[in-house]
Amino acid sequence: MSSNQRIYNFNAGPAALPLPVLETIQKEFLNFAGSGMSITEISHRSKWFDDVINDAVLRVKRILKLDDRYHVLFIQGGASMQFCMIPMNLLGSGDTADYVNTGTWSTKAIKEAQSQGKTITVVASSEDKNFSYIPKSINFDPKAVYAHITSNNTIKGTQWADFPDTGGVPLVADMSSDIFSRPFDVNKFGLIYAGTQKNMGPAGVCMVIIRDDLLARTPKDIPTMLRYTTFSESNSMYNTPPCFTIYTIQLVLKWLEETIGGLGKMAEINREKGELLYGFMDQSGFYKGTAEKDSRSLMNVTFRLPSEDLEKKFVAEATANGLGGLKGHRSVGGCRASIYNPTSLEAVTALVNFMKEFEKKNS
Amino acid sequence: MSSNQRIYNFNAGPAALPLPVLETIQKEFLNFAGSGMSITEISHRSKWFDDVINDAVLRVKRILKLDDRYHVLFIQGGASMQFCMIPMNLLGSGDTADYVNTGTWSTKAIKEAQSQGKTITVVASSEDKNFSYIPKSINFDPKAVYAHITSNNTIKGTQWADFPDTGGVPLVADMSSDIFSRPFDVNKFGLIYAGTQKNMGPAGVCMVIIRDDLLARTPKDIPTMLRYTTFSESNSMYNTPPCFTIYTIQLVLKWLEETIGGLGKMAEINREKGELLYGFMDQSGFYKGTAEKDSRSLMNVTFRLPSEDLEKKFVAEATANGLGGLKGHRSVGGCRASIYNPTSLEAVTALVNFMKEFEKKNS
Repeated sequence: MSSNQRIYNFNAGPAALPLPVLETIQKEFLNFAGSGMSITEISHRSKWFDDVINDAVLRVKRILKLDDRYHVLFIQGGASMQFCMIPMNLLGSGDTADYVNTGTWSTKAIKEAQSQGKTITVVASSEDKNFSYIPKSINFDPKAVYAHITSNNTIKGTQWADFPDTGGVPLVADMSSDIFSRPFDVNKFGLIYAGTQKNMGPAGVCMVIIRDDLLARTPKDIPTMLRYTTFSESNSMYNTPPCFTIYTIQLVLKWLEETIGGLGKMAEINREKGELLYGFMDQSGFYKGTAEKDSRSLMNVTFRLPSEDLEKKFVAEATANGLGGLKGHRSVGGCRASIYNPTSLEAVTALVNFMKEFEKKNS
Repeated sequence: MSSNQRIYNFNAGPAALPLPVLETIQKEFLNFAGSGMSITEISHRSKWFDDVINDAVLRVKRILKLDDRYHVLFIQGGASMQFCMIPMNLLGSGDTADYVNTGTWSTKAIKEAQSQGKTITVVASSEDKNFSYIPKSINFDPKAVYAHITSNNTIKGTQWADFPDTGGVPLVADMSSDIFSRPFDVNKFGLIYAGTQKNMGPAGVCMVIIRDDLLARTPKDIPTMLRYTTFSESNSMYNTPPCFTIYTIQLVLKWLEETIGGLGKMAEINREKGELLYGFMDQSGFYKGTAEKDSRSLMNVTFRLPSEDLEKKFVAEATANGLGGLKGHRSVGGCRASIYNPTSLEAVTALVNFMKEFEKKNS
């Protein structure tokens, strides 16, 4: 690979972005929309930025078919900040919430709720099998204020194929790593949050979609910057928002709607990518997926090779061949190919071809 | 102005950035440092990003002459989040702090501390004269944990010419709008914070410089993302940081050191810009500065014209002539020229020439 070529990027996040989006940013970087300023230099109180954030919000609402009960907010601090804000805003004295533990991020969400002294119940966990599956037939407490799940588990490579029946309790979901990857019925959800650095844009903001009934629970006596109403009442501009990140999100959503053709089409492409990669792995005795088949993620494909030495060699040779980001998370080892929306079928095909070659040479 | 020209940008924040910095970002936007990825696509756990954040931190330490007691952190949420985090981290039960009220942002900082039930004292205020001056001869409580000031008041156009003598109580300062504009003795300060969207880069992060003695006060029982130690123990990478913003900050600091020639030289240029603009206003009977002379800001020059109609006309004609962002803050009206580090002497000269012409035609 020469130094002026772009690689196939399988990073888990920050991750690949659509090339046409990057090219648009590059092209208009010194002069945004004829303003004579860079997008990084315009006032967030200007018509230029209003158009950007309003279009981003509108596209989110259209893509996910949100009705007027839902508010789309952009809040700094990543999903980790939401682990703290959700119980702080939604659980008053005497309230309880259910949590399902499906991996590292769920575990952190649970800890942050508990450390505030909130009453929560872990109603199901897949920790018994190293988080390699999504629990089934869960009994949710009908009196819980919400039921928290992590829709896709970036580190363990599992994903909820269907969302659980909570008997009417609003779902609260961390969708950081699979938002906008497939259509789903949003009406089950009271709150959805997603750090943007996987399927939506660069790092630096978390999108929060919150429904009226949960928004109404926000107390007035918590700090201003930790209250959902601060953001819902100001179109996410109580103070200066991360303008560049929101602008990039807008461009990615435009690409999703206008170039890809919407969420249905995106889901088809993602299914095709997953079938190609998992299909190849399943017929190979060399690569072994770590997630149980019915819990496999279409976003993060985690796998092992026959030895750790071979895994090291695999990652190094892949990198040398222009296939980047294939090392597993530092907490679990192994290999991982993150194939979010912007990662093309072409990239996955290149990966599978490399895997075939590598297997041939090393088995 | 043709649509492909850049304007002279006097926005209060987000604000002008140095053109060479924008050009560098544009040039390497599709392929950062030969990585084959955009800076928005690289992992924050990569050597590429380590080099970026470590260089940014090193430059901050060198420019401000920080010794090893000081930690440089990047935290999301803007200065507004610090209004809440500072008392939450530094004030335990029985502790008190002093606040000086010099305008809108100080007022917000005071409110956020009070709303947490912390014991603070407003030891001085310039509210009696519409915040048009910086209070002098303040009596600070020697038992206070810290004394909070706002070093530059973006909206009212005032700035501390010299920092107050607190008798050893650590100063905590919101330097959002004048950080890196002039040299100062950092040893008086226990904590300095600055939203980056004025003198440092795009919006999306707040730089916090905290000294060991104040860092040691951070309690363990507050949420993870609100504890300073979470950031000091992880080089600001407990979770994914806003990579693009930190990268731009690094480039702006490099420009400050290598193109401008350091903080001393920057202060000279800023003084020259201020003398040109204030000097012109002082000999004109048409434009009237709103801040008292000894409290004038070298970053935000606030002024009025003989009537509101003339102010509207002034802003409109200036905009048409490629001079943007001259409208005063929506809360106070009038006019304001923000002339942060990246705004060149050439831009200020163009502004003064326009002001002369406008005065001639309209008086």
